[in-house]
Amino acid sequence: MVKKRIVILGSTGSIGQNAIKVAEEHRRVFEVAGLTAQNNVEILAQQALRVRPRRVAVSDKSKVRALAGLLTGTGIQVDAGPEAVEQTAAMDGVDAVLVAIAGAAALLPALGAIRRGRTVALANKETMVMAGAIMRAEAEKYGAAIVPVDSEHSAIFQCLEGRRPEQIKRLLLTGSGGPLRTIPSERFDRLTRAEILNHPRWKMGPKISVDSATMMNKGLEIIEARWLFDVPVSQIEVVIHPEAVIHSMVEFIDGAVLAQMGVTDMRIPIQLGLTHPDRLSTSLPSLDFVGIGQLTFQRPDPAKFPCLQFGYRAAQTGGTAPAVLNAANEACVGAFLEGEIPFTRIAKVIDAVLSRHRVVAQPALADLLEADAQARQEAGRFWAAEKVAGGVS
Amino acid sequence: MVKKRIVILGSTGSIGQNAIKVAEEHRRVFEVAGLTAQNNVEILAQQALRVRPRRVAVSDKSKVRALAGLLTGTGIQVDAGPEAVEQTAAMDGVDAVLVAIAGAAALLPALGAIRRGRTVALANKETMVMAGAIMRAEAEKYGAAIVPVDSEHSAIFQCLEGRRPEQIKRLLLTGSGGPLRTIPSERFDRLTRAEILNHPRWKMGPKISVDSATMMNKGLEIIEARWLFDVPVSQIEVVIHPEAVIHSMVEFIDGAVLAQMGVTDMRIPIQLGLTHPDRLSTSLPSLDFVGIGQLTFQRPDPAKFPCLQFGYRAAQTGGTAPAVLNAANEACVGAFLEGEIPFTRIAKVIDAVLSRHRVVAQPALADLLEADAQARQEAGRFWAAEKVAGGVS
Repeated sequence: MVKKRIVILGSTGSIGQNAIKVAEEHRRVFEVAGLTAQNNVEILAQQALRVRPRRVAVSDKSKVRALAGLLTGTGIQVDAGPEAVEQTAAMDGVDAVLVAIAGAAALLPALGAIRRGRTVALANKETMVMAGAIMRAEAEKYGAAIVPVDSEHSAIFQCLEGRRPEQIKRLLLTGSGGPLRTIPSERFDRLTRAEILNHPRWKMGPKISVDSATMMNKGLEIIEARWLFDVPVSQIEVVIHPEAVIHSMVEFIDGAVLAQMGVTDMRIPIQLGLTHPDRLSTSLPSLDFVGIGQLTFQRPDPAKFPCLQFGYRAAQTGGTAPAVLNAANEACVGAFLEGEIPFTRIAKVIDAVLSRHRVVAQPALADLLEADAQARQEAGRFWAAEKVAGGVS
Repeated sequence: MVKKRIVILGSTGSIGQNAIKVAEEHRRVFEVAGLTAQNNVEILAQQALRVRPRRVAVSDKSKVRALAGLLTGTGIQVDAGPEAVEQTAAMDGVDAVLVAIAGAAALLPALGAIRRGRTVALANKETMVMAGAIMRAEAEKYGAAIVPVDSEHSAIFQCLEGRRPEQIKRLLLTGSGGPLRTIPSERFDRLTRAEILNHPRWKMGPKISVDSATMMNKGLEIIEARWLFDVPVSQIEVVIHPEAVIHSMVEFIDGAVLAQMGVTDMRIPIQLGLTHPDRLSTSLPSLDFVGIGQLTFQRPDPAKFPCLQFGYRAAQTGGTAPAVLNAANEACVGAFLEGEIPFTRIAKVIDAVLSRHRVVAQPALADLLEADAQARQEAGRFWAAEKVAGGVS
């Protein structure tokens, strides 16, 4: 395969670390040109010493001295601040950029890579949720390919590869149902943080683990799929599939369904994102169908997991609504992880913020960023008010 | 969609009748130019009156008068004999030819269509089993597309569409396990014909139903897949999947698996074969994943179903061996259906015929036809000898 020069944005997170493994497993294919991280300079420096990028950037400016110290004498360029991350995303001489930054912070770096016409391996849902219309339009304008890395969207991407959009009847997003699938909602108030973060199938970061527990991940994935594949939300369904062997499916107009399956290892969609339209071998074991035993399917429970419905609601409303959904969710999940609000409050605050938002129908990027900021403030106000009132519940 | 002018070879069989339904459901798409049948002139004439082809042909010459009588005054040209079937396969002004003739009798008509550069929707396993190398070479020479209609191979075809051959790791042929999957082999001697012909998932003709009971169908499908997709048999595996929801799968070098699923209705692969690379909508219900309940997988049992192994053996031997396997099987299944030999004798006779055959490594078409004829004779000699000896067992 032709050498691929890549940048990994968010290299110290769960996806980023897997991407480093992929790059190290295929040293003859991948040349890592740049790495960025939010603030974990120890891991970032270790990675840089292993894969020897031309450039590293840390978003948190207060960490630049520590990072520079760890990389003294290596000749690797060290920068800091969000704009340095954006510059790394858009650096010269690069084929593919993996966007593995969590949350809305990925938006400007992702757009930077798109505007350089790169292959953008997109492991971040929020960029498409917030600004899917703009991401699509810019990718078309600059000739960039957006290849999803999310296991569900990578699956759909693989099922759709080489087919025509008019042949699509439905996208079937599968979901394991998350860690709370079998736990009655009456118990949700008494769950420990560990129970909520303990995903049954995938090893993931804390933000995504909470999204999986609320099923907001599927709500966001509906919106992401709508933009990635240009399919109306009415043609996107969620199917609960606890074994997580099928990563998602497409039904075509003749009733034929294609499904992508695999072991639950993110290295497969990561390397596909970076090498598309080529594929690379892996050292992973083949899926053992006999060992699997059985695959099962269930309907999602919208009463138990209202966040899933918020996804449809925001997608159907359109405009700034998905950005608000995403921002309110990020704020609430952050507050939950900080111990500021209980788990069951997440959906309630999101609902309230979404209901109060005045939608801008055809938002520019500035409108989206403003809606995002306002939604975070608005969400914060809810629990601040509750704290004043003497408690959160 | 652009109008497709089609010929249906074997229109009175199970696949042929489904093809007529497809043509009638999509009258604006399909124009039926020709129909052929072996001897069922009543059904053939009814079909001709419904879809109004330019030409019909019956293979059995003794039926031509009856057929002509049934179509008097229609202006439809009526012919008889195997060469008339071949001429219909190669008739002018046709886009796609569905080859739904059972057994080796399909070979010359299929080659006729290939040599006219048609899209050949191939519902017949035996042509590829007997003469896969020649079919491939001729299709390449004359620019014909061979689109498999067998549900398994259609599934693999759909999974491979738009991908590169070097990305393939394994083809995974699924099989329901047939009507005898849960019946202990000690009981095979006492099975009724009805038990053997009663396939759990698909409605099929008697020949294919017996092949499903012996699992020779999978043995033949391995060889068919080897030639259709140009993949070595060592990369083709059989997985038992009793629910028959997954119609087959492909594993790629990175471990990703694509599977094609659907309701068990042959109209989907038939119309895909006739319209490829387009797809047509159907009135069939969508696959109901929640209603399915579960999908399970098992390893096939080679001791219980030796015919499966004969498929690998013949494929690995190559040359005339697959044609001999197929001919011996057709002869034995015919004899079983006529009540001449018991079910358990099928595998034993095939084994003996295959073992005695002297393989021609690079056979021409004449060598294959001769090997086919000899294998049938040889098989017949076994039960003739046994009858003389006083019984079959």
